[in-house]
Amino acid sequence: MIHVRSVLRLVGLLTLVLSGSMLLTTLAILAWFGMQPTELAAKKALLVTVAAGVVIGLALWLVGYGRKAYLGRREALLLVAISWLIGAALAGMPYRMWALFASADDHQFSSMVSCYFEAMSGLTTTGATVLGDVSALPRALLLWRATTHWLGGLGIVVLFVAVLPTLGVGGKRLFQIEAPGPASQGVRPRIRETARMLWLIYLVLTVAQVMLLWSAGMNIFDAVCHTFATMATGGFSTAGASVGAFDSIAIDTIVIVFMLLAGVNFGVYYLVLRGKARAAWRDPELRLYLLILLVATLIVAWDIHGRPVVLMTGGTGEAAGVGEAIRYGAFQVVAVQTTTGFCTADFDRWGVLSRGVLVVLMFVGASAGSTGGGIKVIRCFIALKVLLAEFERVFRPNVVRTVNVGRWSVDPELKLTTLAYVLGVGALFAIGTFVLMMIEPGLDLTSAATASAATLNNVGPGLGDVGAVKNYGWFSGPSKILLSLLMALGRLEIFAILVLLMPSFWRGE
Amino acid sequence: MIHVRSVLRLVGLLTLVLSGSMLLTTLAILAWFGMQPTELAAKKALLVTVAAGVVIGLALWLVGYGRKAYLGRREALLLVAISWLIGAALAGMPYRMWALFASADDHQFSSMVSCYFEAMSGLTTTGATVLGDVSALPRALLLWRATTHWLGGLGIVVLFVAVLPTLGVGGKRLFQIEAPGPASQGVRPRIRETARMLWLIYLVLTVAQVMLLWSAGMNIFDAVCHTFATMATGGFSTAGASVGAFDSIAIDTIVIVFMLLAGVNFGVYYLVLRGKARAAWRDPELRLYLLILLVATLIVAWDIHGRPVVLMTGGTGEAAGVGEAIRYGAFQVVAVQTTTGFCTADFDRWGVLSRGVLVVLMFVGASAGSTGGGIKVIRCFIALKVLLAEFERVFRPNVVRTVNVGRWSVDPELKLTTLAYVLGVGALFAIGTFVLMMIEPGLDLTSAATASAATLNNVGPGLGDVGAVKNYGWFSGPSKILLSLLMALGRLEIFAILVLLMPSFWRGE
Repeated sequence: MIHVRSVLRLVGLLTLVLSGSMLLTTLAILAWFGMQPTELAAKKALLVTVAAGVVIGLALWLVGYGRKAYLGRREALLLVAISWLIGAALAGMPYRMWALFASADDHQFSSMVSCYFEAMSGLTTTGATVLGDVSALPRALLLWRATTHWLGGLGIVVLFVAVLPTLGVGGKRLFQIEAPGPASQGVRPRIRETARMLWLIYLVLTVAQVMLLWSAGMNIFDAVCHTFATMATGGFSTAGASVGAFDSIAIDTIVIVFMLLAGVNFGVYYLVLRGKARAAWRDPELRLYLLILLVATLIVAWDIHGRPVVLMTGGTGEAAGVGEAIRYGAFQVVAVQTTTGFCTADFDRWGVLSRGVLVVLMFVGASAGSTGGGIKVIRCFIALKVLLAEFERVFRPNVVRTVNVGRWSVDPELKLTTLAYVLGVGALFAIGTFVLMMIEPGLDLTSAATASAATLNNVGPGLGDVGAVKNYGWFSGPSKILLSLLMALGRLEIFAILVLLMPSFWRGE
Repeated sequence: MIHVRSVLRLVGLLTLVLSGSMLLTTLAILAWFGMQPTELAAKKALLVTVAAGVVIGLALWLVGYGRKAYLGRREALLLVAISWLIGAALAGMPYRMWALFASADDHQFSSMVSCYFEAMSGLTTTGATVLGDVSALPRALLLWRATTHWLGGLGIVVLFVAVLPTLGVGGKRLFQIEAPGPASQGVRPRIRETARMLWLIYLVLTVAQVMLLWSAGMNIFDAVCHTFATMATGGFSTAGASVGAFDSIAIDTIVIVFMLLAGVNFGVYYLVLRGKARAAWRDPELRLYLLILLVATLIVAWDIHGRPVVLMTGGTGEAAGVGEAIRYGAFQVVAVQTTTGFCTADFDRWGVLSRGVLVVLMFVGASAGSTGGGIKVIRCFIALKVLLAEFERVFRPNVVRTVNVGRWSVDPELKLTTLAYVLGVGALFAIGTFVLMMIEPGLDLTSAATASAATLNNVGPGLGDVGAVKNYGWFSGPSKILLSLLMALGRLEIFAILVLLMPSFWRGE
């Protein structure tokens, strides 16, 4: 039997946390911009949602009250799935309410599905938007959008580094940089301590980036919003032209560095804080992650070098010099592989090679235990090694080779799980593409495939009709629901939602 | 050390067999059509190649002569790879020679790469052609094209049912319907006996289909050519409009039935011949294969029903009735899943659903141990079961479930191998698509992806620019080489060629 009540109680708690964040957002806007009339409808929308959220949250909390909390594997999985699926509904309410209060009838946000899409895109740190002109949005909503990123990113890191491995769910060793072994004080205190550390690291990095962006010339509001989107590898911007709108080498560089930092396994920082910097640096995933970024940057820079650049703010007509090629190439490579999805150049106009590399990077993704999405570098690495070992087994069936990642050898179960994961992502990607083409008449394969890939891997922009200068607003309602589901599936590492569809999940002890 | 000489000797033997087949083709044409002047250049081309083939074959045979023949795993793999890669060069010579002798300078066959592509497409039983108007070809070459199919199909069945499993190469249990266990008289007599049985079954089915097609109104020449292409699940036709040119329900039905038969594991027929018909019918792959064909036919028929049909011979303008929808739907479904690639209707004009189903079927493919290509039904089935089992392991890590296929349980090694295979096909498909788009400027994703899929899975026609009424002639030379390689990779179950690229293949005992 699944302890649904324990789950509901925690969902209630999460609802309260979300409502609290909305309240803080409103207060922050109030403090910054006072009682500006343009923000009135947005603030009202937020506060109405806060009220609703508090009521729902308390109700759920009370339903589960008095019961001894029990969180086993299945409860954790159920909690995680519900958190994102229901959380997006709550997080999307302010958008819908705002359109109502501001009488913006022809606005994207007058459709509940679009609001759900935008909120899911925020919480899953995808960064795909239904909005054409983002900057026309009230700042209260812009800040709330960025906040959904930040909360989602923090949630994912805590979940995959602190909670799930301790419960034995997920890739186990995959996310545990330190040696596992039973915790001496039991599971709960250990989760709590790790989670606190992660939260602290996240906070410190966030404050650091805000300060740097501010000192680089961004106003504090934009600095906060972009930092939230960077640290979560989300991608929502306050400008229609994304980070490209600022056209500053300093800002580009800061964003590149922090996207890169956000794509590292947070366990690495944890190790560093505990004085094990050398062990952290020996992490094979970290090294591979940096190597891929470097190689991909060189390829893309080489490819776009000497051709006219089309920036997010418009074409320059001039051929890109070496410096520009590296600047825009590096930014886009890091933005895509970390699955942030910020843009400074319209990469949809780049050559097949660059676009191909970027699509591959979408799937490779960032490091496990980071805020980034995708398959994850370590999984790709293991899958590749297993494939090579299988090749060898064809002609040397009796030679047993262990597949090693750094100093530890991958056990057979993890080999199978990893291949299954990669295959699962491939299957979902194909199904997503196929269903999108079924629903949207006349949609071309490039747009369908990259829309599927960019949502499933939590990147944001794709190619063609969902390219850097386009948005997801034109999709029909059913497509938006499908894409929202793909975002949730990708974010929760596919299994977490798919298992809910299995009858055996709900059966048995 | 690899016994390269033993391999060369067998390659010499194969060269002689190919040359012998060319000679027989020439004699058959002579017997049928006498000394028609239009056939002169083609016959000359065949005979010149026979002469060259005999010289090369004898030379290779002599190089390896006197050595004790040794055929281990690696030798078998090397032999297989060389047979198809070099065999296609020899089998393509008559095309090139004909263009030379007939002074057909602007013909596709005036390019050696196109000839290699056509021959590889024949031997791998793919059926992709570089020719626009096939019927303009001399009949001697049409027969030779069909013969390359027939030889390739026979070679594959003997290889995967008789030779490789006995040597312990490949999926082992995957291709062995009967219980394995050591053969009492040693390996060689057993291979020989099995191979003889397979060859007999293949021959009987071939004769039966020729007779049926003939009695259904085809002339004997067309009947032979189409039978060769059907039994090998190849797809070369003697008419530009493929099987659609005959516009006969009887012929469509016969071809459907024999494509279906060719897509069954030949081990099943072997069992039936040995009086174990019940065991054969219990084969899970056979049942699943038939089920998929049935369901896919129903979906496609439902989808195309009521819309105007465009046949290979041109549009009718009339909406398809139930009977027509089933007729053309069933034909295309069977033609694509068995990877034959014959056409009666221009399926490129069908809806997204039908085209999507056909693309999925390309990858699913026929049964293991048949002449068909693709991933194979049994592998897809195992992969799906493993994926589901992995889902369950997420929330019940301690429950050990065996993955069963019929009465036997899949051992862990085979699970991993199967997933690796599916992933390998996916990776090659993606690489093929990407490189094609790199080489061919302006190529759209649909055409590139289906060209890659249709060659890798040995189907033949794809969608878009490689659709049913199109051909592969317009590709550049490098693309044709790439596509030829994809055909060989798919035909030899990817590992057989890729292992040659591994340094460790060439090292050690």
